[in-house]
Amino acid sequence: MRALVFDGKLALRDIDKPIPEAGEALIRVTLAGICGTDREILKGYSAFRGVMGHEFVGRVVESAEPAWIGERVVGEINVSCGECSWCLRGLGRHCPHRTVMGIVNRPGCFADYVALPLRNLHRVPAAIPDEAAVFTEPLAAAAEILAQMRLEPGTSVVVLGDGRLGLLAAQVLKNAGAQVILVGKHGWKLDLARAWGVRVLTENNRELQAASVAVVVEATGSPRGLAEALRLVEPRGTVVMKSTFHDPARFDATKLVVDEITLLGSRCGDFSAALDLLQRGQVRVQPLLSKVFPLEESLEAFEYQERTACLKVCLANPLG
Amino acid sequence: MRALVFDGKLALRDIDKPIPEAGEALIRVTLAGICGTDREILKGYSAFRGVMGHEFVGRVVESAEPAWIGERVVGEINVSCGECSWCLRGLGRHCPHRTVMGIVNRPGCFADYVALPLRNLHRVPAAIPDEAAVFTEPLAAAAEILAQMRLEPGTSVVVLGDGRLGLLAAQVLKNAGAQVILVGKHGWKLDLARAWGVRVLTENNRELQAASVAVVVEATGSPRGLAEALRLVEPRGTVVMKSTFHDPARFDATKLVVDEITLLGSRCGDFSAALDLLQRGQVRVQPLLSKVFPLEESLEAFEYQERTACLKVCLANPLG
Repeated sequence: MRALVFDGKLALRDIDKPIPEAGEALIRVTLAGICGTDREILKGYSAFRGVMGHEFVGRVVESAEPAWIGERVVGEINVSCGECSWCLRGLGRHCPHRTVMGIVNRPGCFADYVALPLRNLHRVPAAIPDEAAVFTEPLAAAAEILAQMRLEPGTSVVVLGDGRLGLLAAQVLKNAGAQVILVGKHGWKLDLARAWGVRVLTENNRELQAASVAVVVEATGSPRGLAEALRLVEPRGTVVMKSTFHDPARFDATKLVVDEITLLGSRCGDFSAALDLLQRGQVRVQPLLSKVFPLEESLEAFEYQERTACLKVCLANPLG
Repeated sequence: MRALVFDGKLALRDIDKPIPEAGEALIRVTLAGICGTDREILKGYSAFRGVMGHEFVGRVVESAEPAWIGERVVGEINVSCGECSWCLRGLGRHCPHRTVMGIVNRPGCFADYVALPLRNLHRVPAAIPDEAAVFTEPLAAAAEILAQMRLEPGTSVVVLGDGRLGLLAAQVLKNAGAQVILVGKHGWKLDLARAWGVRVLTENNRELQAASVAVVVEATGSPRGLAEALRLVEPRGTVVMKSTFHDPARFDATKLVVDEITLLGSRCGDFSAALDLLQRGQVRVQPLLSKVFPLEESLEAFEYQERTACLKVCLANPLG
């Protein structure tokens, strides 16, 4: 089968189809999304080698449980052991023995086929087209904020960063009843959010007063975002950290202590919550889909993502 | 009256007795504690000028409400406006208009007398001697952790730092049912904690595995403490930050995000909770009282605190 492999450099290769292990299904990938993490992997993140990709929608073609065959599915990216204390508490995403599709010790989905345990799969309701379902993973990451903290209706929230995650988080939190302001630097991305009814501000505005916001979501992808988040958050407020970066983050510990700020690290989320949002049409994801390349043009897709002002770029491999 | 004044240098002065404003009482200070924050003020923290000191026990000598006169009291250090949204929510400790006794724009208690609003005062039960009551403020800061987070009985907790706050926090959290380990570098301080039934380890031990502890309390007073706290805390765990320092803190944001760690800033606490712990004898504070100097030897007391291996040093001014 065809697969986009990273072994120090990126190349489309012809490799063997994966052989599903016990409990796993084989999935024919129909649409896959390129994520910021994929670009970080090319720079060395996680020291990953192998088939890339962790956002997909596809159809089950092999499974020991016949009921799954032919189902359109998305798949949780963390493959946990199922036996440790984390897994038994339903927190397999933190299993210390986990592999992560296309990120840690497990082949990814930028390929004709990918294998995943059945327990990682979620059926996609018919009302959700592939072009929306492919956003399940990043949308789950945005919705994870609501799973980690209690957000009272009317709470003041500022989302810093108008990238994909910032745009999704702004919608999810507005949908949950928060008073959301999205702060970014790209007029065309802010226009998208404005069209969804989210209040937007450009990065260099002076409207936002220090210590005035209950919850700040840091999704800039830059270490500097944390300083601005700590400036904006009010005493006893929460800064949700979504950005990962290689350099150490620096912050004013005295401010954190004196104002009793909570800094909350937030990563992947539950796919069910994201699929529910998509099915009920409560979050718009398709305007974030900038361009779709066929799988055989994967390299061009990565190049396009690098050099173009865009949001989500996908790789398509429609069923013949 | 006599007062220990800092105006760039520290000196015992003869100054006017404070004149209580409306709603304030005048208190004759009988015992006052020197805190790490006092030493930071001498280095420039908060740019404070005036009468120092914020930990005390004393007797009310003047009050518009006669019921208070003669009462033995301790006093909350934050003097809030009583009218803003923070005050109305019972969070006057975060009032943006607040003054702070001996720290921000308000004379402190290293003096014969101090004035404080009646609403800041707490009567000290007879069962609590002055030598224990003087620990109300730091004990409240330790107990604040329990007010900020839910701590299930049996939760694994590591307290980093065997200073006063670390020793108090270890006791308070053990008392709340946690499995506490105190990590420090001073044998004689760790011996105190061991005598209270707290498990102790020296700083350079190798017993504590990475990602193995649910809650880590960072009370080392050093920016390096945060790195060790983040090493020890397990996924979805909490690092409680008690240390303030001038240099920016640095940390690995990727670890915080991927493991969904909560970093919780924690400062002052409610005096009622601390007095309750003292009255029920659930926390031992008097072993932390290293030496008492008379008020007129305040400078010697500060010097002693600087150059001696000690815990709490107090200034006494017994009623004649």
